[in-house]
Amino acid sequence: MNSYVGYLAAFLTTFSFLPQAIKTIRTKCTEGISAVMYSLFTIGIFFWLVYGILVEDIIIISANFVTFIFAFIILFISIYNLIKKKKITN
Amino acid sequence: MNSYVGYLAAFLTTFSFLPQAIKTIRTKCTEGISAVMYSLFTIGIFFWLVYGILVEDIIIISANFVTFIFAFIILFISIYNLIKKKKITN
Repeated sequence: MNSYVGYLAAFLTTFSFLPQAIKTIRTKCTEGISAVMYSLFTIGIFFWLVYGILVEDIIIISANFVTFIFAFIILFISIYNLIKKKKITN
Repeated sequence: MNSYVGYLAAFLTTFSFLPQAIKTIRTKCTEGISAVMYSLFTIGIFFWLVYGILVEDIIIISANFVTFIFAFIILFISIYNLIKKKKITN
């Protein structure tokens, strides 16, 4: 029972970033998004990936690998927009 | 060594939502934020909380309890803005 709850939690928290990644790619709008959050989050997910490799847990590795890709996309577009905004205001 | 990597990952991914919660509370702007993401994510974090209780792991419980609060705040404001937007367009 426990592992099913864990798999469900991992699946939901992993794939919850898919609609955000799609929305950010489609709209290029990162207005309300905190780039600080996605910077910390992406680094945190990277350490979950390292942790998964260290403890040789394929579920932690695969879930965080997928989340890392989505989070990195959102972070990249957020930072790209911040740089663009700075250029315009200068 | 492994557990330190795990604690660092848990700390970063948990507290990464604090700057987003602060930004959302301060600006009330959820323009670029996907309400679908935060719905799935909040439910997912809830299941991580249940999982932590089932396996009696205080770190999983405390990290996800904190994340749940931040994610729920962001979700609440996102949905509030969506409802407000719908009323205006009707």
